[in-house]
Amino acid sequence: MSKLIVYMSMSLDGFIAAADDGPGRGLGVGGEPLHAWLTDGNINPASFRPEYGVNAEIFGEMMASGAVITGRHTFEWAGEWGGDHHDGEPIFVLTRSEPVPAVRGNALYLTDLHSAVSQAKAAASDRNVMMHGGSSVQALLSVGLVDEFVITLVPILLGRGKSLFAEQPKTSRLRLVSSVEGVGVLHLRYDVLD
Amino acid sequence: MSKLIVYMSMSLDGFIAAADDGPGRGLGVGGEPLHAWLTDGNINPASFRPEYGVNAEIFGEMMASGAVITGRHTFEWAGEWGGDHHDGEPIFVLTRSEPVPAVRGNALYLTDLHSAVSQAKAAASDRNVMMHGGSSVQALLSVGLVDEFVITLVPILLGRGKSLFAEQPKTSRLRLVSSVEGVGVLHLRYDVLD
Repeated sequence: MSKLIVYMSMSLDGFIAAADDGPGRGLGVGGEPLHAWLTDGNINPASFRPEYGVNAEIFGEMMASGAVITGRHTFEWAGEWGGDHHDGEPIFVLTRSEPVPAVRGNALYLTDLHSAVSQAKAAASDRNVMMHGGSSVQALLSVGLVDEFVITLVPILLGRGKSLFAEQPKTSRLRLVSSVEGVGVLHLRYDVLD
Repeated sequence: MSKLIVYMSMSLDGFIAAADDGPGRGLGVGGEPLHAWLTDGNINPASFRPEYGVNAEIFGEMMASGAVITGRHTFEWAGEWGGDHHDGEPIFVLTRSEPVPAVRGNALYLTDLHSAVSQAKAAASDRNVMMHGGSSVQALLSVGLVDEFVITLVPILLGRGKSLFAEQPKTSRLRLVSSVEGVGVLHLRYDVLD
């Protein structure tokens, strides 16, 4: 069965972006170390494609997903990933604002969380759905729609920025499925139990 | 050389206590899972002394320290640890308020961070100094006095509570020294690089 897996790089102090994030600077000012694992120690440093080792395995897992869910900020600030996150797979963009923009390329804007997740899972069929986001992740978590987290924990304390988890109305119990050290980071996989 | 090592149990969303912490409930309301690793799966569940495995090793390391630094809230809300944290080692309690209370048992209240750390390291001699705290940890971190963190990462999202790191004026780079799975938790050791 298709699972919704949130993949995010997070500083030890919980930030997924340094301060002053915005269009073209989704990692904020000084937040580049969060994504260094995507380019460090690889064959092609500019590729954003780790080519060997644990980091490549995690990246490959994301790229094998059959659909993408993302928050609108993440999507638009990343230049809509040039219109295609990977392999032409459909992108479901969560937005709270109306009117919902028209479909663009592989992307569909949606306001209903449950509908977005069921459409994404249907599109992914027997593959998983990958998700990137900040407040959109919190929104899905709060209604029990996140199946798994893969947190790439980066050894830095950013001090301030955008939190992955921020304040939540409820406690969620997790189960540590695995922890694997990649170059410079730790990839933590958690099931969401409730 | 003596190192100052912060030992804290932290939820994946960065909390060291659930909401509404206070005297006699340092973990807040519903924060007990943060310390479950100290009692789960042990010979004597009431001991707060893991007796075997990785969790016991981490606990034993704390108990081998030659001095304790703590924040005043942590100290007082824990009932001053009955006057002795372990083995009669000296306890240096950081407080921002004047007048500084008189010495109580093994504990000394101090307002000067640098003085507290140098006194604790001198007392510990060739052993390390262990530290527990929240805002006091942030205070020492911000002036570069924390050498190492041992974060016991607990698989729970508390949603709200007291953050270990809160907002800091600067970024600190860390180095992951080791990550070891204990029963139900992950012990992460980081050097503070700057």
